[in-house]
Amino acid sequence: MTRPTIDHTHNAAATSWVEGANGHPDFPVQNLPFGVFSTDGEDARGCVAISDFVLDLRNVYDADLMEDGDDLLHYASLATLNDFFAMPNGPSQLRAKLFAALTDDGYKSAMEPCLVPMEQAHMHLPFEIRDYTDFYTGIHHAVNIGSLFRPDNPLLPNYKHVPIGYHGRASSIRVSGTDVKRPSGQQKPAEEGGMPEFGPSKRLDYELEMAIWIGQGNELGDPIPVGEAEEHIAGISILNDWSARDIQAWEYQPLGPFLAKNFASTVSPWVVTMDALAPYRTAQPARAEGDPEPLPYLQHDTSAAAFGVTMEVHLTTPKMRQDGDAPFRLSKGPMTAMYWTAAQLVAHHSVGGCNMQPGDLLGTGTLTSGEEGGEGSLIELTEGGKKAITLPNGETRTFLEDGDEVVMVAYAEKDGFARIGLGECRAVITR
Amino acid sequence: MTRPTIDHTHNAAATSWVEGANGHPDFPVQNLPFGVFSTDGEDARGCVAISDFVLDLRNVYDADLMEDGDDLLHYASLATLNDFFAMPNGPSQLRAKLFAALTDDGYKSAMEPCLVPMEQAHMHLPFEIRDYTDFYTGIHHAVNIGSLFRPDNPLLPNYKHVPIGYHGRASSIRVSGTDVKRPSGQQKPAEEGGMPEFGPSKRLDYELEMAIWIGQGNELGDPIPVGEAEEHIAGISILNDWSARDIQAWEYQPLGPFLAKNFASTVSPWVVTMDALAPYRTAQPARAEGDPEPLPYLQHDTSAAAFGVTMEVHLTTPKMRQDGDAPFRLSKGPMTAMYWTAAQLVAHHSVGGCNMQPGDLLGTGTLTSGEEGGEGSLIELTEGGKKAITLPNGETRTFLEDGDEVVMVAYAEKDGFARIGLGECRAVITR
Repeated sequence: MTRPTIDHTHNAAATSWVEGANGHPDFPVQNLPFGVFSTDGEDARGCVAISDFVLDLRNVYDADLMEDGDDLLHYASLATLNDFFAMPNGPSQLRAKLFAALTDDGYKSAMEPCLVPMEQAHMHLPFEIRDYTDFYTGIHHAVNIGSLFRPDNPLLPNYKHVPIGYHGRASSIRVSGTDVKRPSGQQKPAEEGGMPEFGPSKRLDYELEMAIWIGQGNELGDPIPVGEAEEHIAGISILNDWSARDIQAWEYQPLGPFLAKNFASTVSPWVVTMDALAPYRTAQPARAEGDPEPLPYLQHDTSAAAFGVTMEVHLTTPKMRQDGDAPFRLSKGPMTAMYWTAAQLVAHHSVGGCNMQPGDLLGTGTLTSGEEGGEGSLIELTEGGKKAITLPNGETRTFLEDGDEVVMVAYAEKDGFARIGLGECRAVITR
Repeated sequence: MTRPTIDHTHNAAATSWVEGANGHPDFPVQNLPFGVFSTDGEDARGCVAISDFVLDLRNVYDADLMEDGDDLLHYASLATLNDFFAMPNGPSQLRAKLFAALTDDGYKSAMEPCLVPMEQAHMHLPFEIRDYTDFYTGIHHAVNIGSLFRPDNPLLPNYKHVPIGYHGRASSIRVSGTDVKRPSGQQKPAEEGGMPEFGPSKRLDYELEMAIWIGQGNELGDPIPVGEAEEHIAGISILNDWSARDIQAWEYQPLGPFLAKNFASTVSPWVVTMDALAPYRTAQPARAEGDPEPLPYLQHDTSAAAFGVTMEVHLTTPKMRQDGDAPFRLSKGPMTAMYWTAAQLVAHHSVGGCNMQPGDLLGTGTLTSGEEGGEGSLIELTEGGKKAITLPNGETRTFLEDGDEVVMVAYAEKDGFARIGLGECRAVITR
């Protein structure tokens, strides 16, 4: 397996018999991301998104609608996609087969009954997530956060050598649409040497990240070379790594964030595959003239190692929803704000021998564009909570309030190709 | 379920028909820790340790040797103990039933064929570990490590308020007896602003810890009150949280340890239950006069909230093994070096809403006694690698060398009660 190339499945002129698929902003036939869903009373099974439908792959399998010598459909129709994405080339082959069927009118009458309208589909996490690692690749975010603490020297000396990351909590990751309960925790004493306060976080924030999913794993003690790292990536989704800034500020020395993050993380339900992303590859941009060369184990051809994906964060308050106001866009920026490539993250993670497993989730870290309007978190937008933002209806926010809904979206566009989307990563804050 | 009390299963005078069980230093009938094993060519199944045997619970179940209305034996005989320890009172009931059978000669002829000599049993991890958290409760260790960096102010201001912890890597945890491959990684540049080195760690260390296993979990958003926290603990084992000090020193700012720890952790195979530990409970000792009161969510009756467990670390070098030398004891100290109780760790971990799951592993952090000879790591024993230790055969060590074997043992003793042991946590360093 090598990096997927652009082929007939990316042809912008290809059309599908599925209603609304052609020109669909997220899920035209050129995308076909995998997910897991259930309907009322039924158990969870694999699917792909097409237009405003999910294609129930268990039904496609049970009805024997497609040639499937490799049992691909069986694995893709299970309640988690771990085993499916562990198959070398499996997802790639199945995506191509589904593309063929969905663009061939001869399949329409047999396959149409396997389409379920999205509003009837309850989406689940696509994987059983065994380990979750969050990186810190957003260099503009790292500079902004570092500046709050060390104005003269925001980036630590290791930043441009080591892909900084830490282990996160897997058990509390939930799929888009699940409410997030505001965490309580210890907050820094008002005076030095005083008792910490305890109570609901007053500085609850989102973090705009992308999720990189591991497909094939590696054995313990057997690092993944950077040149092979992309073969271990299943695809990407959108990740909101909720953060309680006041809890974080008090607890994080000396071992890093803990309760400030582990109450919840939210991920979008669709795994957009490396195959689907082939046309939107671009040069890794966030390294600049004068930056140090990476160590050899991190060196690879970065000319098309990044993803031309645009990300947005939108907010609605309870009042806005009551008044029927449109969501307010808080930020927009490119995934190319990553200092390290996805391949470099995988190579670094495993270089000491750590074993990756199918369904492991790697967060990119907060991706801030470096330009105004591209801040990936409220702590950046409000300069540490000091400058409230004003919404169109006159409400203000420093951090999130109860009832606020945060919706992240992401998509890839390129001249000559269809636009494809990653769907939504959405959640409401509750008390 | 409340805290287990001392009952007939702790009677030191109780005897078993199993050969060698009476007076066995680790596994008399008063202990009966649970584990998972396989023999050559057979699949993994649950067991208990008794004397120098494992009792194959699948065979006991299949042969219908015990009354078992609750299907306890079925769950205890699976390939992981997650579901078994999630049963309220299940492990407690089964331990009592097994105690009755193993002390009743009437069971001998039928049950003896279910005993497998330990040397024929390949032990497995007792749980599928979903999330691993490592705490930092060893206050003497925290002072020692802090002193290396900040001689005047070794403990950070949050230490006596917040049970400091971080998420670790679950995938690379292995059972005792599995070799540990020395990790490679980035090490701090020799000169400020220079390029980091890359290569095998030169400062590979062990960390003497105890593992606390979660039995019953909690729902996301629904914290475990400290008064109920012990009901969520399945039992304890020995944990070696291997650490590459040179990798750690360069990578850990600002988000904590990552590759320095995630290449391997080693855990002993036996889950010594809260029931078995009942006689050895003791007061939580590491908090001292003048220490701040914990916040209310961490307050509970600590008069018997700690475990009177003694831990030891032994080393053999390749030359020592070749010469037939006895292992050299590097340290010995009590588990009561924890500043926080196990119940406080569970309450803190979940107080923001984080959900714990059966089989989650909580490490205590390195437990150093505070007295000479009680150091829980080589970085402490050698004062940061500056003072080599000399072994009885004249060899010296600052950090671990290839071929070195580290063996940790732990046991509980109390006048009037049998001694019980946790077994061994053993591994050899390989290149």
